[in-house]
Amino acid sequence: MKKILLSEDQLPDRWYNILPDLPEPLGPFLHPATLEPMGPADLAPLFPMAIIMQEVSADRWIDIPDPVRDIYRMWRPTPLYRADRLEKALDTPARIFFKYEGVSPAGSHKPNTAVPQAYYNAAEGIRRLATETGAGQWGSALAFAGALFDVEVFVYMVRISYDQKPYRRALMETWGAQVAASPTDRTNFGRSVLQRDPTSPGSLGIAISEAVEEAATREDTHYSLGSVVNHVLLHQTVIGLEAVKQMEIAEAYPDVVIGCVGGGSNYAGLAYPFVAERLSGRHPRTRFVAAEPAACPTLTRGVYAYDFGDTAGMGPVVPMHTLGHNFVPDPIHAGGLRYHGDAPSLCTLVRLGIVEPRAYMQNECFAEAVRFARTEGFLPGPEPAHALRAVAEEAQAAKEAGEARTILVNLSGHGHFDMSAYDAYFAGRLEDVALPQERIDSALAELPPVPALTS
Amino acid sequence: MKKILLSEDQLPDRWYNILPDLPEPLGPFLHPATLEPMGPADLAPLFPMAIIMQEVSADRWIDIPDPVRDIYRMWRPTPLYRADRLEKALDTPARIFFKYEGVSPAGSHKPNTAVPQAYYNAAEGIRRLATETGAGQWGSALAFAGALFDVEVFVYMVRISYDQKPYRRALMETWGAQVAASPTDRTNFGRSVLQRDPTSPGSLGIAISEAVEEAATREDTHYSLGSVVNHVLLHQTVIGLEAVKQMEIAEAYPDVVIGCVGGGSNYAGLAYPFVAERLSGRHPRTRFVAAEPAACPTLTRGVYAYDFGDTAGMGPVVPMHTLGHNFVPDPIHAGGLRYHGDAPSLCTLVRLGIVEPRAYMQNECFAEAVRFARTEGFLPGPEPAHALRAVAEEAQAAKEAGEARTILVNLSGHGHFDMSAYDAYFAGRLEDVALPQERIDSALAELPPVPALTS
Repeated sequence: MKKILLSEDQLPDRWYNILPDLPEPLGPFLHPATLEPMGPADLAPLFPMAIIMQEVSADRWIDIPDPVRDIYRMWRPTPLYRADRLEKALDTPARIFFKYEGVSPAGSHKPNTAVPQAYYNAAEGIRRLATETGAGQWGSALAFAGALFDVEVFVYMVRISYDQKPYRRALMETWGAQVAASPTDRTNFGRSVLQRDPTSPGSLGIAISEAVEEAATREDTHYSLGSVVNHVLLHQTVIGLEAVKQMEIAEAYPDVVIGCVGGGSNYAGLAYPFVAERLSGRHPRTRFVAAEPAACPTLTRGVYAYDFGDTAGMGPVVPMHTLGHNFVPDPIHAGGLRYHGDAPSLCTLVRLGIVEPRAYMQNECFAEAVRFARTEGFLPGPEPAHALRAVAEEAQAAKEAGEARTILVNLSGHGHFDMSAYDAYFAGRLEDVALPQERIDSALAELPPVPALTS
Repeated sequence: MKKILLSEDQLPDRWYNILPDLPEPLGPFLHPATLEPMGPADLAPLFPMAIIMQEVSADRWIDIPDPVRDIYRMWRPTPLYRADRLEKALDTPARIFFKYEGVSPAGSHKPNTAVPQAYYNAAEGIRRLATETGAGQWGSALAFAGALFDVEVFVYMVRISYDQKPYRRALMETWGAQVAASPTDRTNFGRSVLQRDPTSPGSLGIAISEAVEEAATREDTHYSLGSVVNHVLLHQTVIGLEAVKQMEIAEAYPDVVIGCVGGGSNYAGLAYPFVAERLSGRHPRTRFVAAEPAACPTLTRGVYAYDFGDTAGMGPVVPMHTLGHNFVPDPIHAGGLRYHGDAPSLCTLVRLGIVEPRAYMQNECFAEAVRFARTEGFLPGPEPAHALRAVAEEAQAAKEAGEARTILVNLSGHGHFDMSAYDAYFAGRLEDVALPQERIDSALAELPPVPALTS
């Protein structure tokens, strides 16, 4: 157990924007109604101008505002650990390092973007944000950030989570947010869903549609989201920029960089500064492994196409790996990995063979989470448990090759609010069900009428 | 928000033992059967010799073993924060600093002693520990420590908590501990309780008796406890020793040091190094405020007497403020503050007027916990919420006096596993019931037949 800390004055003062370094440009977002490229004005009802500019910026470095850095300092720089006890348990010559984002007040990497989003909205006079949340991690991060910048937060929480996870709701309320079970009767789209199915359990896609509708129709309210889009990934690069310095202190450089992927933000946050090193040719051989759940295998079994980000088709149409915006994954416990698409920039890196995706069943992931807790002490969330599964594979590969490879992984959050999942795991109640291809095919039949992309 | 960090090489290498500095010696522990003073041999079935020697040591400084410091480094030194946002919300000229122990893997200060206890037992060849837990904080800390030193941990968990808090149980199991609902049919005492009342909800006193019985009757098993006794408070002084250095960096010295008190270990841990400064005359005017729940007012309404630490009367008889070993407090949510007695050294400081105890109702404490979460971001556990209530009082007093007093408080743990309490608070379901004197009197009628102590 070796901890590598940075001092506060080593907190990065800029985020890294990968867009200008990508080998090929991202396709533009399309307007959901016209399917024509969107301009900044189209996004103005949803986002503050500072964020819209970041979304399409061609600048490699973007300054982190001082008030955001002041809040980051509550828990940043986060520690990087050498996991020598895990190495021993895995009986591997590999050296394993993990970056631990669970030290934030909300318990995950999500505040890295929630804080600047609340800040930029407040700076432009917006005092109310609407958002969605599935398992509750993003909603609680934005509730936390809203409390600090005096911005009201309204959270559409997927009904099944609202009913099953009252503690996540209570956490958001403690930070002052209002939380409603989605679908609600507050929005046109919510009402239309309830009319068809009064007992709808909701879905992330529905909740996004409700939050977008509220922001689009209320002058005083903007929308905020926690993954997928460029500005979110940008904000998360504070993780990787710190990790670069910490690996230097450790006198090591990763042979492989690993993380779990839902929308892609925690993985991009850690990986992109190292991807930049590969793209520039300074470290051309680093490998990048993205771990996703077999129940929601966007990168391994999705298609690369333009698709809606939300169920109602009210938000931008985005080029990405997708299982179809109507795909509803099985109720696995890694709630943060149950999104039907992925960040466009990450999809580009997958298509180019720079990032290698792998899909895992949840029991094998929980087995690694338990091994981690018993060796390294910290209790992983179900999402980074997927990344730990990939770590175990890479550690085994290093052993077979007889090489002391260096592995770097993002432990993106703790599992304190996910003990029911551990409980189910120990009781043998966690299901590993194969995902039939028909379910993917039927969801993919409903893609928007945009010409197919080359994949 | 200002964070004061220490580097790893500033981690203390010695614990501070207050015993030689106390203005009057502590009375000895008495054997539960003979009521005669106990010697080291009497304690040998329960504890390793290194811990027995620490329990009665007259040395002011005791070295922290390197393997313990290696584990401490997973989360220590812990941060000290200047709570400037809370100061503003309280509209006070006071400067408020909080030491944050919630960064440990188990989420509280408890691992500070669980780790050395597991270490010393392992070092003397003991590979199995029995202990009790109420709400689960101590049990999870020892489960964590046991995992790291390859020591099996068996936890007697109060049945009502076992049934109501399955997630704390799952946490202990994740770290590899075995957990049973107490009273069990594993021990003579447990069976006797079940015979009288097959549906007994259990109590901390019963669970202690079961764990002590198991340790006393099994050759391979020792006992471990999480508060009250001297060696536990000794281990916790790592908190205050760090805080002394951090206050120096902040160029401040506390006018008042605040913490919550169940058995007394987190408060003593922070306060004793500052108490030493007062006793030595170097800082003679520092005040010390101990916050306890009105539902279990040991220091404010208990008597100072020799009493059993456990219900069955199997453990040592200890001189302390007590509500009687049969006192069962109302089921308030601050599970860590529901013990009938207090640490003897802390009781001595209360009797001498050095530590001032105050009792609070739970709703007023939760109100402060919510204010804290919305200003300083971190979510306090229900126990340190009591300390925050005292902080608010002291901040108000400073305002009335027009003085920029310096307040230091121990935020001993987070509330991630206590969201049901926050939920109940927001729903108006938290009860504040006055404790009738008759309940205290009737429990105090059953003290062991030891001559009364002067109080």
